[in-house]
Amino acid sequence: MNIVLSPEQVSEKLKKFFIDHLPITQFMGLDVESYDGDTLILTAPLEPNINDKQTAFGGSLYNTAVMACWGMLYLKTQEKGVFCNQVVTEGSMKYMAPIDGRIRAICHAPTEEELAGFFDHFERKGRARITLEAAIYNDVCVMKIDPEAEPKITPSVKFSGQYAILKS
Amino acid sequence: MNIVLSPEQVSEKLKKFFIDHLPITQFMGLDVESYDGDTLILTAPLEPNINDKQTAFGGSLYNTAVMACWGMLYLKTQEKGVFCNQVVTEGSMKYMAPIDGRIRAICHAPTEEELAGFFDHFERKGRARITLEAAIYNDVCVMKIDPEAEPKITPSVKFSGQYAILKS
Repeated sequence: MNIVLSPEQVSEKLKKFFIDHLPITQFMGLDVESYDGDTLILTAPLEPNINDKQTAFGGSLYNTAVMACWGMLYLKTQEKGVFCNQVVTEGSMKYMAPIDGRIRAICHAPTEEELAGFFDHFERKGRARITLEAAIYNDVCVMKIDPEAEPKITPSVKFSGQYAILKS
Repeated sequence: MNIVLSPEQVSEKLKKFFIDHLPITQFMGLDVESYDGDTLILTAPLEPNINDKQTAFGGSLYNTAVMACWGMLYLKTQEKGVFCNQVVTEGSMKYMAPIDGRIRAICHAPTEEELAGFFDHFERKGRARITLEAAIYNDVCVMKIDPEAEPKITPSVKFSGQYAILKS
């Protein structure tokens, strides 16, 4: 089985997961902005996530990014029909510039080849690891960034996380 | 000026900062457990920070650790009589084992020598960077870990963060 969930199904599944299992996401106002099978965007309003500089708290930026990558992997395992335990094992943030508006963390799917190797390893060993990345841009909604565009739009915050899945 | 704040003053200053500036810490129940001039422990109950595995959400662990180190630097600048902007520029987490009870992030102060170099750089350049580390142990309150103790108590979660101070 290898299906791409509709944006409505994705939004529903992830939102239900947040509501059922992660109370802090409800305080943060964490929500699914969009998913097209390749790019997942999670978003949260500034107000509950604000800091002393009237910009987004570094911890809330981490939470949004770590869940964008977590959500991407969750969706890919659901699309694959794999049901497993999924955990984050490492997470790294680089804060290059403040975010002074709505938080919007963008995660692109791994390549088909990476995913195939990941699921193959899982089938053979009962566990597998993968690295996913997310970026947060300041007040810009970018599903597809035009690589030819000048000036380049660079992320204000970069996240890289390692995730593991294990047989339930 | 180089004073060590009393535990009561520390608790009051940091708690006031959290209440005034970081609404998410109030949802988390983030609190100061102790500070003795060398070790700062921040703590938060499991319930608002829980995940789908009934253990602490990785994002809440990050928030507690990033603020333990942030708090340590805030207290050291206050003790030194330095008033400045303070930001986190990088943060990295390693999750080795789940935390299934109260979160308690422990940050030890930099050495006197490190702090002297840091503040000297700040005086000369108007900005300075420092790396701080925090550890979270599973359900163990350890102000001082006996290095001779067997078996070794190892952290379940390790955090390393880079922080910068800048002239206001």
